[in-house]
Amino acid sequence: MTYCVGMSLNKGLVFMSDTRTNAGVDNVSVFKKMVTWENPGERVITLMTAGNLATTQATISLLEERTKAPEDREPSIMEAPSMFQIARIAGRVLREVIQTNSRSGEEASSSFNATMILGGQIKGSAPRLFLIYPEGNFIEAGGDTPFFQIGEAKYGKPILVRAYDPDMSFEDAVKLLMVSFDSTVKANLSVGLPFDVQVYETDTLKSGTSQRIEADDDYFASISSGWGEALKDAFNSLPNFKFDN
Amino acid sequence: MTYCVGMSLNKGLVFMSDTRTNAGVDNVSVFKKMVTWENPGERVITLMTAGNLATTQATISLLEERTKAPEDREPSIMEAPSMFQIARIAGRVLREVIQTNSRSGEEASSSFNATMILGGQIKGSAPRLFLIYPEGNFIEAGGDTPFFQIGEAKYGKPILVRAYDPDMSFEDAVKLLMVSFDSTVKANLSVGLPFDVQVYETDTLKSGTSQRIEADDDYFASISSGWGEALKDAFNSLPNFKFDN
Repeated sequence: MTYCVGMSLNKGLVFMSDTRTNAGVDNVSVFKKMVTWENPGERVITLMTAGNLATTQATISLLEERTKAPEDREPSIMEAPSMFQIARIAGRVLREVIQTNSRSGEEASSSFNATMILGGQIKGSAPRLFLIYPEGNFIEAGGDTPFFQIGEAKYGKPILVRAYDPDMSFEDAVKLLMVSFDSTVKANLSVGLPFDVQVYETDTLKSGTSQRIEADDDYFASISSGWGEALKDAFNSLPNFKFDN
Repeated sequence: MTYCVGMSLNKGLVFMSDTRTNAGVDNVSVFKKMVTWENPGERVITLMTAGNLATTQATISLLEERTKAPEDREPSIMEAPSMFQIARIAGRVLREVIQTNSRSGEEASSSFNATMILGGQIKGSAPRLFLIYPEGNFIEAGGDTPFFQIGEAKYGKPILVRAYDPDMSFEDAVKLLMVSFDSTVKANLSVGLPFDVQVYETDTLKSGTSQRIEADDDYFASISSGWGEALKDAFNSLPNFKFDN
């Protein structure tokens, strides 16, 4: 499993991903699941992936190759005129990788599927955030659904739903994501530190601050322990239940 | 889907279940998923079910029939000498119902599976709480895992893990379950009000207070709205994040 969140704020976009991949609990590795392409001053594109690691790495490599030799290949994500077109390209590549593996006749104990979150901005347009399905189609974040989760989404969703605010600072958004990731890590062994976090500030057209949160990160430890206490206080602040009879 | 929680406290057992069943989002019904058998002064048994409704109703009906005409049938749950034996009986009946349906040759778009939480006490023994799998085998709650969830367990788990305390009062336990159910209801349409809640106080050997939490319940509404604010306050009380660079 995996846990990645892409969040749209008024100030820009925030991306956070874990790094744990596993083929069973006895076969665990660390891989970065976030990649950023940029042409400073013109476009910034960030992609996060969840699912079959061979599929997601092949997809990223194919998108990457096309950025380097665009004259030989289909439209590159560095040339496409809009984030919508970039999402179409990424979706098509993802679908092709999955179909190629599925049709190869090889039997697999798990599926070749993968899901991706794509966000970024091209000069002259607003930042956009997409969730791309294994079938290659995709949906876009909006005011009603301002963030996307992929992978193990359920444990960390309630706090996102409750505390998200489009006016948040980047720092508060990262803090919120830390809480969401902490709940997920505590419940699902297949999600683990280190985490990668990156922000994109609207109209800067260059990749923003990024940081790796290591397993021994002091701030994450303070969130993880503090959240337990804070939740208990929150719980105690609610009105008490009384049975009717 | 469904959401049921059975919780073991020092004071006794607490059970809470939702009532929504669905065969697709366009086919929703209300069914009670909690049943209690008792022989006051001698034994109390509470069962909650999640999964295929035909399977769970058949299982409960078979267990129920056996309690009424035990001389004609296999050991009844009202005659079995221990909660462990009752769990074995319930597990065997569940497995037989599932196997009978599966072997009938009928094709079903969903599986016939179901899972159950069984708890109670027999005079002379301590209260016990079990989670019964579709295969008929089961596990028992203990100090390390003092509660079981069945159905849509993920959204409501983080708060249970954080705020559970074996010394809780029944009222606090119900309040905690209300928060857990609220997070689940907000995220999964297939879990819905009304809820059924019931407590069993150790060594009383009679079914304890029970209550139905209706959709317009004032207390649940206050928890539901208050929890959002309390969570935001809890979130704000945590130390703020700063980027390293």
